[in-house]
Amino acid sequence: MKANIVTLGICQMAVTPDKAVNNRKAQAMIERAAAAKCQVAILPEMFNCPYETKLFSQYAECYPEGETFAMLSEVATREKIVVVGGSVPERDEHNHIYNTSFIFDERGDLLGRHRKVHLFDVDIPGRTVCTESSVLSAGQEMTVIKAAGLTLGIGICYDIRFPELSRLMALAGAEVLIFPAVFGLTTGSAHWELLMRSRAVDNQVFVIGAAPGNIANGQVYGHSMVVNPWGDIMAMAGAEETLLTVEINIDTMFTVREQLPLLKQRRLDVYAVDYKK
Amino acid sequence: MKANIVTLGICQMAVTPDKAVNNRKAQAMIERAAAAKCQVAILPEMFNCPYETKLFSQYAECYPEGETFAMLSEVATREKIVVVGGSVPERDEHNHIYNTSFIFDERGDLLGRHRKVHLFDVDIPGRTVCTESSVLSAGQEMTVIKAAGLTLGIGICYDIRFPELSRLMALAGAEVLIFPAVFGLTTGSAHWELLMRSRAVDNQVFVIGAAPGNIANGQVYGHSMVVNPWGDIMAMAGAEETLLTVEINIDTMFTVREQLPLLKQRRLDVYAVDYKK
Repeated sequence: MKANIVTLGICQMAVTPDKAVNNRKAQAMIERAAAAKCQVAILPEMFNCPYETKLFSQYAECYPEGETFAMLSEVATREKIVVVGGSVPERDEHNHIYNTSFIFDERGDLLGRHRKVHLFDVDIPGRTVCTESSVLSAGQEMTVIKAAGLTLGIGICYDIRFPELSRLMALAGAEVLIFPAVFGLTTGSAHWELLMRSRAVDNQVFVIGAAPGNIANGQVYGHSMVVNPWGDIMAMAGAEETLLTVEINIDTMFTVREQLPLLKQRRLDVYAVDYKK
Repeated sequence: MKANIVTLGICQMAVTPDKAVNNRKAQAMIERAAAAKCQVAILPEMFNCPYETKLFSQYAECYPEGETFAMLSEVATREKIVVVGGSVPERDEHNHIYNTSFIFDERGDLLGRHRKVHLFDVDIPGRTVCTESSVLSAGQEMTVIKAAGLTLGIGICYDIRFPELSRLMALAGAEVLIFPAVFGLTTGSAHWELLMRSRAVDNQVFVIGAAPGNIANGQVYGHSMVVNPWGDIMAMAGAEETLLTVEINIDTMFTVREQLPLLKQRRLDVYAVDYKK
């Protein structure tokens, strides 16, 4: 296998109310991804906790303590696979709760963590109502890390709606943007594919959406997706629990950027996007 | 009719090698738009000149001289309609050529002009090869103007590929982004709809793509389109010459922005997009 080809596994797991069950499921799906020769396994947003703001504090763990972090590190080490740990409720030393993605390398070491920068406070009457900020604190930084020979940019769900963050991650060198995310049926059918594809096309990067699978009578959209830098959908799941594997070739990115040199043609004398951290 | 409802007409005209024929066609389609009760008529990119870089100098006019500007102003006055004059090759006093949209109000007065900021220099072998910068100079400013009770942001074709420009126009108050544009078959089928819809969803504005119609054995994509601030396609043409009319209600924008307050939720402590002019 060439060095610039990497196989990724997106674990579209159905999340239950039982944290231990969720963690066993996540572990099993990471093992399946490793068995399928994946070098990176990606979990969905809030994979160990139902996506209900009132539950986040109860399910939260404070790194490095906590059964979820132990599981992620252990399976990464044992299976020699990078694990992008979707997200979980994280409690910090000041008792603030974050929606955080922990990323472990093949040796089980923590590579980095992304705390969701844009909290989901929306009010679409009768369809989608949520106020994450009532219980969560917001992250303050973007997250770009090197893993499995790739440069990964990590955002969580609502973070994808803000083009500035994806742009800045791409400018910081990210080749693959990974968004663990729970979209509902309303915004999922309206915008999920559009957002994934447009961030890919604008920034000429691979984009991955990692969603949970639906459960009986569930209201999550699923449709985990991998998009290439031309905006083509390389792989897409349905709504049910599944492991989605895909082989990406970073050369695709270089070809697209050569043919359509968008990032070089930005008019930096007319506008600027700046990272303020 | 309520003040916040405006009817727009997109003149998807087929462009010929004959400038006088093109101008008569443009005039006739603006008259048709007015007869259809449109308050704004929108022409495509390079509506008076085939989209060939080697022709731009030959077809260029220097405002306020020139038959094309005279036609646009006259028909706007006579029909009492705002005319977004797609674009034409414009020569300035220093003999520089620009790809410029001239916008006239219902009294025939020039409201503003947008010179294409991002020149189309791409090389997709065997499919799309173009070097606008070999003959054109680039615009230096974004263009946001008030017309027909609306605030319009004007970009031209390749300008839509750079999310910074659309973002800045929306932040400057634009409610409707208008992109006269000639996409070819390759990038048109891959990205036209995606770009129009994503700028609308990210910025919660209406977006209009105004393309020329195809001619026999032609290679233009057509598909002029109007997208609402939720990303829904309100109207879309095929590839052939046609007048596309649509009624837009600015209240849709306020509703979407209230439900999903993206523009207020940007993390200006983490990043900034600045206009440098």
